[in-house]
Amino acid sequence: MADARPIGIFDSGLGGLTVVKEIIKLMPSENIVYFGDTGRVPYGTRSNETIKRYAKEDEEFLLSRSVKMVVAACGTVSSVASDMGKKLPVPYFEVVSPAAKEAVKSTKNKKIGILGTNATIASGEHKRQILELLPDAKVYTAGCTLFVPLVEEGWYKSDDVVVKTTVQRYLEDIKKAGVDTLILGCTHYPILKEVIGEYMGEGVTLINAGVSTAKSVKEYLTENDMLNESNEEGKREFYVSDKVGSFCKTASLLLGVEVEEEKATQVNIGNL
Amino acid sequence: MADARPIGIFDSGLGGLTVVKEIIKLMPSENIVYFGDTGRVPYGTRSNETIKRYAKEDEEFLLSRSVKMVVAACGTVSSVASDMGKKLPVPYFEVVSPAAKEAVKSTKNKKIGILGTNATIASGEHKRQILELLPDAKVYTAGCTLFVPLVEEGWYKSDDVVVKTTVQRYLEDIKKAGVDTLILGCTHYPILKEVIGEYMGEGVTLINAGVSTAKSVKEYLTENDMLNESNEEGKREFYVSDKVGSFCKTASLLLGVEVEEEKATQVNIGNL
Repeated sequence: MADARPIGIFDSGLGGLTVVKEIIKLMPSENIVYFGDTGRVPYGTRSNETIKRYAKEDEEFLLSRSVKMVVAACGTVSSVASDMGKKLPVPYFEVVSPAAKEAVKSTKNKKIGILGTNATIASGEHKRQILELLPDAKVYTAGCTLFVPLVEEGWYKSDDVVVKTTVQRYLEDIKKAGVDTLILGCTHYPILKEVIGEYMGEGVTLINAGVSTAKSVKEYLTENDMLNESNEEGKREFYVSDKVGSFCKTASLLLGVEVEEEKATQVNIGNL
Repeated sequence: MADARPIGIFDSGLGGLTVVKEIIKLMPSENIVYFGDTGRVPYGTRSNETIKRYAKEDEEFLLSRSVKMVVAACGTVSSVASDMGKKLPVPYFEVVSPAAKEAVKSTKNKKIGILGTNATIASGEHKRQILELLPDAKVYTAGCTLFVPLVEEGWYKSDDVVVKTTVQRYLEDIKKAGVDTLILGCTHYPILKEVIGEYMGEGVTLINAGVSTAKSVKEYLTENDMLNESNEEGKREFYVSDKVGSFCKTASLLLGVEVEEEKATQVNIGNL
């Protein structure tokens, strides 16, 4: 039996759209409801308590849109507040487990690097999951606070000295450690994959959590007969907690296709 | 008649502490209640509607602490939501008017630059006030989105290539225009004054809105017999909307003295 209800996807802001992009690539006929908490972005520098409160409100909003599944397309929420997903009345996916599994599959020398926001790195969630799957792995981490503001400012090109120096500064120790696999543990980071890849060198595999998560979602929907069986392209609805205008510009960069203003709606997330 | 009630000061986050620093320098015996909206910082990339809503909640919190005055120590709020201050039951000060006046007093060649967040620059408030005072002034502006995250990450030293390049990129046109006076229109920016000053060169006067605002506040309190006449050092209370721990580290940098954890309290600003 097909399930035409939308997949609900949320993020602290716009980064989650890199996950939406992969989900659309794999399952173009799925309907999607996206919520980006642009009125309170970023989450990655905030405390665990605040992140959990915000995540709960985001999930409640998606549930109010009758979604068949919730995807936390935010590295910070996935790391810090993943427990909360277990209490939801619909299946819950996040971006940490798929990336950890993919990294373990990819590594040859068992040295894995993890990039994320400060909150993501402090949670130790990627590391915990990697060591559960591969107990003798060596894990190296770096909190990359400025990556999100850089991407949102549109500074991500590989010949930009600010971007290059920032990447070098955050990744220096991980590169020295000789990792062969590097998790981009925040959904904004795939936008920086060129400059990160150039700095790390050819022998290093970058793990884009969005790709891994989209695969997991498709597997689950297939196994549980929950795919939308329509042959038409799915409907996409975007909700944000700040104004729609500024959302559309960056959204188009992250999603890889134009997002029109009329497809996006502002909601008042703090006072639902 | 003396007035021992505290001065209420708020900001989107920590930048406002550069204003607190100047107020303490001028009026050490004043009691101060500071609120930093660290759970929702930054404001400068958000829409006017959202900034106004947040500012209103911040002001209501300060009023609940029985302050004798509200100071919006945030360039963004001062620019976008200054009207709201007029409706308050206590005197209201902000950081735009004092800076505009100081800039007009300082300029010789009538070319004035303004740095601020995108929302501050888009509001045109500094420019409007400068032209009111000096109609034939030429005003040049630059939105410097990354300055706040750089300062909050502790990257502000004048020999840091990321900081220098970012400053150069944002300020290039203003420097070329030949301004002799430059307003640091966001309360985080005084932390970058060394690198901004070096880039602009010796002939350019930097206007620190905190210094100008503290002077205006002292004038008002003196004229209206509202100074706290105690000879003891004033009490300082800090409130934030995210966890206290991370606040104290950056707060000490901005305030120039150690902020102890026991002097700071977390409040739930979204759901007062």
